Amino acid sequence: MSEQARLDLQRRQRLGMAEAIWGEHKSAEQIAAILVRQQRSGELALATRVDTAKAQAVAALLANDPQLQFHTDARCLSLGSAAAARPALGDVVVLSGGTSDLPVAAEAQLALQWHGIACELVLDVGVAGLHRLLDQLDRLRQARVLIACAGMEGALPTVLAGLLPQPVIGVPVSVGYGVSAGGQAALHGMLASCAPGLSVVNIDNGYGAAMAALRILLSSGAAAEQ
Amino acid sequence: MSEQARLDLQRRQRLGMAEAIWGEHKSAEQIAAILVRQQRSGELALATRVDTAKAQAVAALLANDPQLQFHTDARCLSLGSAAAARPALGDVVVLSGGTSDLPVAAEAQLALQWHGIACELVLDVGVAGLHRLLDQLDRLRQARVLIACAGMEGALPTVLAGLLPQPVIGVPVSVGYGVSAGGQAALHGMLASCAPGLSVVNIDNGYGAAMAALRILLSSGAAAEQ
Amino acid sequence: MSEQARLDLQRRQRLGMAEAIWGEHKSAEQIAAILVRQQRSGELALATRVDTAKAQAVAALLANDPQLQFHTDARCLSLGSAAAARPALGDVVVLSGGTSDLPVAAEAQLALQWHGIACELVLDVGVAGLHRLLDQLDRLRQARVLIACAGMEGALPTVLAGLLPQPVIGVPVSVGYGVSAGGQAALHGMLASCAPGLSVVNIDNGYGAAMAALRILLSSGAAAEQ
Amino acid sequence: MSEQARLDLQRRQRLGMAEAIWGEHKSAEQIAAILVRQQRSGELALATRVDTAKAQAVAALLANDPQLQFHTDARCLSLGSAAAARPALGDVVVLSGGTSDLPVAAEAQLALQWHGIACELVLDVGVAGLHRLLDQLDRLRQARVLIACAGMEGALPTVLAGLLPQPVIGVPVSVGYGVSAGGQAALHGMLASCAPGLSVVNIDNGYGAAMAALRILLSSGAAAEQ
Amino acid sequence: MSEQARLDLQRRQRLGMAEAIWGEHKSAEQIAAILVRQQRSGELALATRVDTAKAQAVAALLANDPQLQFHTDARCLSLGSAAAARPALGDVVVLSGGTSDLPVAAEAQLALQWHGIACELVLDVGVAGLHRLLDQLDRLRQARVLIACAGMEGALPTVLAGLLPQPVIGVPVSVGYGVSAGGQAALHGMLASCAPGLSVVNIDNGYGAAMAALRILLSSGAAAEQ
Amino acid sequence: MSEQARLDLQRRQRLGMAEAIWGEHKSAEQIAAILVRQQRSGELALATRVDTAKAQAVAALLANDPQLQFHTDARCLSLGSAAAARPALGDVVVLSGGTSDLPVAAEAQLALQWHGIACELVLDVGVAGLHRLLDQLDRLRQARVLIACAGMEGALPTVLAGLLPQPVIGVPVSVGYGVSAGGQAALHGMLASCAPGLSVVNIDNGYGAAMAALRILLSSGAAAEQ
Amino acid sequence: MSEQARLDLQRRQRLGMAEAIWGEHKSAEQIAAILVRQQRSGELALATRVDTAKAQAVAALLANDPQLQFHTDARCLSLGSAAAARPALGDVVVLSGGTSDLPVAAEAQLALQWHGIACELVLDVGVAGLHRLLDQLDRLRQARVLIACAGMEGALPTVLAGLLPQPVIGVPVSVGYGVSAGGQAALHGMLASCAPGLSVVNIDNGYGAAMAALRILLSSGAAAEQ
Amino acid sequence: MSEQARLDLQRRQRLGMAEAIWGEHKSAEQIAAILVRQQRSGELALATRVDTAKAQAVAALLANDPQLQFHTDARCLSLGSAAAARPALGDVVVLSGGTSDLPVAAEAQLALQWHGIACELVLDVGVAGLHRLLDQLDRLRQARVLIACAGMEGALPTVLAGLLPQPVIGVPVSVGYGVSAGGQAALHGMLASCAPGLSVVNIDNGYGAAMAALRILLSSGAAAEQ
Repeated sequence: MSEQARLDLQRRQRLGMAEAIWGEHKSAEQIAAILVRQQRSGELALATRVDTAKAQAVAALLANDPQLQFHTDARCLSLGSAAAARPALGDVVVLSGGTSDLPVAAEAQLALQWHGIACELVLDVGVAGLHRLLDQLDRLRQARVLIACAGMEGALPTVLAGLLPQPVIGVPVSVGYGVSAGGQAALHGMLASCAPGLSVVNIDNGYGAAMAALRILLSSGAAAEQ
Repeated sequence: MSEQARLDLQRRQRLGMAEAIWGEHKSAEQIAAILVRQQRSGELALATRVDTAKAQAVAALLANDPQLQFHTDARCLSLGSAAAARPALGDVVVLSGGTSDLPVAAEAQLALQWHGIACELVLDVGVAGLHRLLDQLDRLRQARVLIACAGMEGALPTVLAGLLPQPVIGVPVSVGYGVSAGGQAALHGMLASCAPGLSVVNIDNGYGAAMAALRILLSSGAAAEQ
Repeated sequence: MSEQARLDLQRRQRLGMAEAIWGEHKSAEQIAAILVRQQRSGELALATRVDTAKAQAVAALLANDPQLQFHTDARCLSLGSAAAARPALGDVVVLSGGTSDLPVAAEAQLALQWHGIACELVLDVGVAGLHRLLDQLDRLRQARVLIACAGMEGALPTVLAGLLPQPVIGVPVSVGYGVSAGGQAALHGMLASCAPGLSVVNIDNGYGAAMAALRILLSSGAAAEQ
Repeated sequence: MSEQARLDLQRRQRLGMAEAIWGEHKSAEQIAAILVRQQRSGELALATRVDTAKAQAVAALLANDPQLQFHTDARCLSLGSAAAARPALGDVVVLSGGTSDLPVAAEAQLALQWHGIACELVLDVGVAGLHRLLDQLDRLRQARVLIACAGMEGALPTVLAGLLPQPVIGVPVSVGYGVSAGGQAALHGMLASCAPGLSVVNIDNGYGAAMAALRILLSSGAAAEQ
Repeated sequence: MSEQARLDLQRRQRLGMAEAIWGEHKSAEQIAAILVRQQRSGELALATRVDTAKAQAVAALLANDPQLQFHTDARCLSLGSAAAARPALGDVVVLSGGTSDLPVAAEAQLALQWHGIACELVLDVGVAGLHRLLDQLDRLRQARVLIACAGMEGALPTVLAGLLPQPVIGVPVSVGYGVSAGGQAALHGMLASCAPGLSVVNIDNGYGAAMAALRILLSSGAAAEQ
Repeated sequence: MSEQARLDLQRRQRLGMAEAIWGEHKSAEQIAAILVRQQRSGELALATRVDTAKAQAVAALLANDPQLQFHTDARCLSLGSAAAARPALGDVVVLSGGTSDLPVAAEAQLALQWHGIACELVLDVGVAGLHRLLDQLDRLRQARVLIACAGMEGALPTVLAGLLPQPVIGVPVSVGYGVSAGGQAALHGMLASCAPGLSVVNIDNGYGAAMAALRILLSSGAAAEQ
Repeated sequence: MSEQARLDLQRRQRLGMAEAIWGEHKSAEQIAAILVRQQRSGELALATRVDTAKAQAVAALLANDPQLQFHTDARCLSLGSAAAARPALGDVVVLSGGTSDLPVAAEAQLALQWHGIACELVLDVGVAGLHRLLDQLDRLRQARVLIACAGMEGALPTVLAGLLPQPVIGVPVSVGYGVSAGGQAALHGMLASCAPGLSVVNIDNGYGAAMAALRILLSSGAAAEQ
Repeated sequence: MSEQARLDLQRRQRLGMAEAIWGEHKSAEQIAAILVRQQRSGELALATRVDTAKAQAVAALLANDPQLQFHTDARCLSLGSAAAARPALGDVVVLSGGTSDLPVAAEAQLALQWHGIACELVLDVGVAGLHRLLDQLDRLRQARVLIACAGMEGALPTVLAGLLPQPVIGVPVSVGYGVSAGGQAALHGMLASCAPGLSVVNIDNGYGAAMAALRILLSSGAAAEQ
């Protein structure tokens, strides 16, 4: 790449959130270069969808910079520090239907923590064993925003949004086979939900769900932080 | 139609279930003629997917034969009597997620009653208000087979099959809009279900679900009826 | 319908929002009966997706009850009063790309007003004439939540979410032809958006977007209202 | 995975069937851990969709525990013993259209045997050589439930359900190319079947078909076993 | 239409088959004008997919020309005479799975007869009652070409092509609902067929199947007719 | 595979064509075993869709039997001899739009030659350089049947069927990218063709097109061979 | 509609082309109001996709203003005059495959004429009768830009772009049935074209193709007009 | 490949543009052979979609001919020289939404340069950071033709075509995940665009967009070059 990427370095100032590097279609060289530029300009530097091999290649390119960190569950690379904690904004809980949804749920959690937001994971509460979800209701009632990740038929956010009044953001996960391969069945199930006020992001888009939650926290939090 | 339809009049003897007339793409003349032939040959005579106008046209063609009956909720026409009751085979409960699923649920109920099977409807137990379903669990536990009709995201049979051990047959309903228009989201949600052992029929196929339930009852019932 | 609908009358208490009657697949008789039951139980009584003919039939069934009101732009019927205004919760702006998106935008506006939330429409700010949107930025910066309705390619919420930090809820609209017929292109464009933190509801689901906005306002508003 | 999976260990007690581990999107570490926990809690421990390499990795992690068994045809791993035989519940026959359907058919057979149900395979009875199926009718007539696996156009369960009165569960198989790649043509063919009472599970879902058959056997078998 | 249509009047000389007028998207005026021009140039004049109302409008425009004939079952209009019979070319049998496939089957039959080819219909031989088809095998064995029309899952041509050695042309029919609505399931089922040498035309394309059969008859018939 | 495949060894006697082994989803062991059984029973033994590595594995299993032959272009394995030549049945020409269609075209050619039919390839006559096709018309006019393979937009068979009167069988090829990836655009283009009497087989189904051509040759050839 | 539409009245100054009113989803009242506003502001006033009944309703609302003109073939309404002729910019030819494509072709022609561009129609040159197109090559060679409208398989622009060097804009037309219903097969065929440099607009988008041609003429025409 | 490819060597003379070798489905041997033949016949010799490994294999086959050049960013191989520069025809700017679109943008640039056209890249001007695009407007206003490459939701060409009057050719890029995987969302977004006169090529078809631009330049450039 002879020409430098035209980064949107004002994004955090304009929108309150950093531009993450979507690592899947980028080379290790591209990722390393952008991470360094983001860090130098004082931005949060985070790359998503980075597999282990690519992470190691980036580490080699950056001479194993101790500031570089690979978040295995979330498949993310970060360079430098996270933002300072902002407890006044409230917290988020990320739920998942099954163990296989972990990478997407962990990406959402990390993205929020990286912006200073407290975020807890509640895994394996799929609706085929409903008691597992009902057991968590008290805990869930205390969060400001809920993010629900699910593959297969994707019914978790529907059941959740029928039980609790908070904002619920559904994240379809590309886990499944046959009609649910690629996450389309989960996506359509969430969009078609009979529960009111459930909103949805793209399949596997943990980062996007985190940013949607962050927008919610920010929109009421200006006063709270003062 | 210059040539007579080649009816499968041995079907009930061979399979234990009658060949219903699928009324949607047939004219009133065709439906009337087939009903009469079925009745004369001693078969159960039932036509599905008949709207009010077509039902009236058939009635006129049959000189308002008092044996002809229009089942409004189920959108079906019958000529002659139902089969004798077979209480030893056990009963079926048909559930629906919302009021709009009624025609499909009623078609399933009628088809079973027409073959002599006791069948009750439990309406409006969609998962966005979960308590409505949980309130019915004791009643549902006593049925031999459960048929669950749902449009939109179609999560009802998934939740049901996670709670109860009976055979659960999911019927996606073509109620919805956007991604759920035509029932595809419900169909895919049921097929992709994380609940074990849920089986599914075509969208709006209340008759088919009834026949699948009948096969189940018949397969264990031979002994019971003796 | 021999059996009464099993309404979710506790929904407003549980979730802070009423169960709207989805009018499209229901008869005038069904809508009239549910509206009356909702009103009697003290619930907000609102039916969406009701065309003029069906609205007149409901009015006739309810003997032209003066409490019944047809909202033409929004294609909704209401019976009784809206909730009291809740100014402390903040307000919402609903944007639309073109004139043809009006019914969906108006449904979102009405649903919010019906729950006591102030809501303004900003129409015809499609991105093919970008200055129309840029002219509104100062106004938009003051809203708590933005709902952006768009058909065709559905780029409006993407551009909006790149410019402003608030929660943005995209509503794809089934306006278009060829590849955009039915709203699929707009839906996919919003889900695939390169702007961070945009969340989406089903095609034409103005009511759902309103309820997602209401959840956001409620989640931070408890304190504000005291 | 820092947090332990929240297993649904009461499932067998509640539904009469164990929760299988869907191995495709899980690591060898995750599979090994769950198998051990299932075994320790007295559950049937079975993982589906495990390829040879992953099976060997699990074996290494479990120190080649002699209780661990890899079922090559069915691509399943089990740990510990199967349930005791339950001959009073009746038996199941699993049919397949072609040799390539074997993995799915074998998964269904194993899942039933693992729950104590007798189950026989009848392979290569595709409808392009109809005599192969007709030759088996006498044998098939004696089974309680039939499971029919087919890829390509998926016509086998349709022909079968037109010939025999038992419950028939169709399993589309992702074998084919062009329009049948991924199993969609077979799935749609089975759902659209003109044969009455055929029900269907997701593509390649041999385990699900087995559990649907088990529900049928259980629903009439309580009495039989006493 | 100010400009005259540019008809392909040499088609019959070049290809041995006439250009039929596809009536569905044309006005009565357009159809009438083209029929007259075809007749005047000595061509076979045939319009397909004409409903009763449009046929009457064409008749009025042509002053009820006695040469104009409406073929009700086939939904076709002809003007003038059919081609002379060509018995040496051999005959075709058109089969259909159900009564609802009649319009497509009749269109194929008429198109062949109009070109001088003997053609018989065999209706209602769907595979859910297999004996109805097996009863016809002797008759079918004597035809030069078989055209098999089927909606729903479309399995008829597959079973047929597995039993008989002649050319079999499958015609999917847009009869069905849910996944088979519009004929896609039947189309895919025929293309994915496990029977060797089945070829397929577009959904509802009875005329096209007839022309494919005519090409076959012509390719070997030159000698036979001398 | 503990149970032997149930081969359709009577197929050639019944239909005049052998059952090819579809090699893609079968192991080298399965292919080797079936080839040997077919050869021993006197059948033509041919396996399609075999890549080089699998072909070598089969060769090793059969101890490099000199009767085993790998047809590189066609990706097929044969064991034993082809059928005797049947010149009286006439010949077939297989055309292709581009170089990338070669494997499918060669599979069709080999399948015909294997059944004793003369068959020539005419490559690279795509319609973007129309003169290349027009130059071949005299040659093509002498063939009994034409098979036209094309990927991308798949227009070749349409143009061909508008120019020549013989049977034309279109074979969509899974060559392309974007909307033509997988061959769907070519398939739909051929089915939707405005040229009369074009029939189509599944994507990449060279063998199927050959068998459709063979059915045509056989249907008129019985007399010719005597 | 209580709020006035926010028209993009500077579009012609900015882009050299007027904003047409897309009439399909607008009421007669909306269309009449926008036409009047456009005319008053000195803009070209043109509404597309207006059927005869809606056109008459608009005429009634505008008191049969003699400046209002309904273009029947193109299904467009105009108010006031077209732009002055701009012969120095060069001309466009619009081709169509069949008579049924006329409305789309005529919309493209009118849109160009309305902007002062000379434009001729060449109808019925579909590729199934190739000589009809080849006969027009000399005429076509003289146009600056070619717009090719086609439904069914949509092969016309591909063949055209292989023969001539000018810009070719393909317009898929929603004429067809089965796989070509709605114009998807034609759209995909044009996008997948093996001919180099063919560009495409949305299905039925005659106006869009005209504006794409206008952009081409404008980009080189500034000098020419001086 | 025993038969030589039938190249369209007159294409450049007929259309003004060379036939590129689409390298993706061809072997190194095929590519090497065609490049040599093109070069020998005096044609521009260019192969697209060649990965590094295949490029090295071709280089080995051509004995590292110094005339062979691999263009890494564009994934193209060329043999021999580009055409002479044609500055009088005007220039093209290729824009891209993000870094991941580079290969497609670079292919378009190279294809134009190879035909003698000046072409500049403007990368990373996606609409989520609108100021990056607005900053380039003065530069863009001076180009004759704009090519806009974008994945994800593909809104860049829509915004661009609303701001500038030149011909804009949209190239959807197969970058994204979930609903945007494969580029379908971007393709549909561009086709459905509310901006007038945007035309589109197939997903990832940088070469095709370049040829569409070249057609535009050629159509007005004959005079300019004299």
